[in-house]
Amino acid sequence: MARVVVVGAGAVGCYYGALLAKAGHDVGFVLRRDFDAVSGDGLRITSPSGSFHLKDARALRSAAEAGRADWVICSLKTTALAEAADLVAPAVGKGSRVLALMNGLGVEEPLARRFGPEVVFGGMAFVCINRGEPGTVHHLDYGQVTVGHCGDDPAETALASGLLKDAGIDAVSASSLLAARWEKLCWNIPFSGLGVAAGGADTSAILGDPELRALAEGAMREVVQAGNADLTKAGRAESLDPEDVVERMFTLTASMDAYRSSMVIDFQMGRPLEVESILGEPLRRATAQGIETPVMAVLQALVQYADRKRAEGPDRAAHVATASRRSAG
Amino acid sequence: MARVVVVGAGAVGCYYGALLAKAGHDVGFVLRRDFDAVSGDGLRITSPSGSFHLKDARALRSAAEAGRADWVICSLKTTALAEAADLVAPAVGKGSRVLALMNGLGVEEPLARRFGPEVVFGGMAFVCINRGEPGTVHHLDYGQVTVGHCGDDPAETALASGLLKDAGIDAVSASSLLAARWEKLCWNIPFSGLGVAAGGADTSAILGDPELRALAEGAMREVVQAGNADLTKAGRAESLDPEDVVERMFTLTASMDAYRSSMVIDFQMGRPLEVESILGEPLRRATAQGIETPVMAVLQALVQYADRKRAEGPDRAAHVATASRRSAG
Repeated sequence: MARVVVVGAGAVGCYYGALLAKAGHDVGFVLRRDFDAVSGDGLRITSPSGSFHLKDARALRSAAEAGRADWVICSLKTTALAEAADLVAPAVGKGSRVLALMNGLGVEEPLARRFGPEVVFGGMAFVCINRGEPGTVHHLDYGQVTVGHCGDDPAETALASGLLKDAGIDAVSASSLLAARWEKLCWNIPFSGLGVAAGGADTSAILGDPELRALAEGAMREVVQAGNADLTKAGRAESLDPEDVVERMFTLTASMDAYRSSMVIDFQMGRPLEVESILGEPLRRATAQGIETPVMAVLQALVQYADRKRAEGPDRAAHVATASRRSAG
Repeated sequence: MARVVVVGAGAVGCYYGALLAKAGHDVGFVLRRDFDAVSGDGLRITSPSGSFHLKDARALRSAAEAGRADWVICSLKTTALAEAADLVAPAVGKGSRVLALMNGLGVEEPLARRFGPEVVFGGMAFVCINRGEPGTVHHLDYGQVTVGHCGDDPAETALASGLLKDAGIDAVSASSLLAARWEKLCWNIPFSGLGVAAGGADTSAILGDPELRALAEGAMREVVQAGNADLTKAGRAESLDPEDVVERMFTLTASMDAYRSSMVIDFQMGRPLEVESILGEPLRRATAQGIETPVMAVLQALVQYADRKRAEGPDRAAHVATASRRSAG
């Protein structure tokens, strides 16, 4: 049994950490909002695949309380990416491995720089999940996790996916972490970025509107191009086939009912948006490789603007309303 | 003194119609919402350049009540463009001239097809104006009108601008109506289209956000390209110089304080958006001329989606909220 620490235990971290604990691993959960609830009464998971109550879930205030772990799962929001290595470090020692279970691109890099790429992994969760009352996570649907290793070492990748699979998690090994990250962006940029830019549109709204659907496809083709250029630059032989990606992503999305990406939910809840990892970094890499990505650029600007408006809060909104009471024909 | 009928007397039509009436012209106002107020107590204009009360403003239910006019000013919203010729027709007779005082592109065409291009004019108002309580229009700032003739006949154009100038209106004659329409779009597409796509951003919000500002400039350059291709196709020698347009539009916009375009106001008020004339028709012409306009295409799709959501109303919104209660990580 492994010693596991989940740092940034929101819905995703709590859910997968709870499954690992249920499978018998020794799991510590570094919590903020839910610390009191979990240390008092444990962690409850409701799920169509079986609800359970982890009575003795170990709530921690920080990774320092955990001591060295075999696996450190970093499931922070990427808006805290700059602090990720510091927050994780106290639990990382000799033989530790670190899994960045986060959205977007460039999320392993700060961890790989700090701890070495040979011990850092990336994970991409495809899951419908919600935090409920403190101490409770509602798993609604899906749950697959794709994992890859920063050095793309197949044996290391198999270790990570094995840990998850043995706990009953649907885990898939990626032969190239970078290719898997870009492939995930082929879904996230159109459906998260466009979903927010359209004022909070779920997948069925995007698929049901001919212009939005065409835009989603246009964005996806840009991501494929950018990803392929980035893979080539990284010296990887893998590439994404645009026709295949478009076909698979739209088929997958059509098979889901109205699905809101985590970014659309964050937008609707007034929470910080993961703009940098989902749009900013991909756009920078595309630009660095000379790939034209006008749709991505528009989406990045609109989502970033939405995030700034949120950050400026109601005071600023009121100010704007006053300043622009003047109107124009 | 001319017989004038204003068809679609919203804020813009009432304001300019009232100035013409004040100058001594015989003006009839075809009204809907404000009919009772205006027929009972006339039309009130509040304005920094002089408020006035047009006690005997002639309120009409339809152009048929007006009889033949020398000038028919069509200031309908372009969302009613398909009905414009029918609504205007009863006041158009021998010697009548029709001025399309409307936003966007393609707004003179239905009138020119019905009444002949030689009697049809286009007008573009640049004005800060609001409807107040019924019977009252608040003029806040600006007021310039650029007018052109469908056949670009200088003598005809001078007639139209003369009518306005003699009533104290700041009128400018356009040597090419099509070039003037495209030049206006160089402002409207970035600041109206992007303003709505950004969730209701005024000019200062767009200028103050580096990414939105860059997008506005990108959109503007696309409009210049599209406009030049459309002008060439129409056999016109005029063309827009991108550097000059960008420089002038940004200087003009920076000199205004937080200004909301009429489309942004419509969006914030939940009213129909003039998507077709401001974005749809320009985009179609760009596409027909093989001009790549990715930013315009994104803005058109987002604004049209916003307009559809509005049209579907709260019932549909509630339905979507229920359908997408499921959420995603």
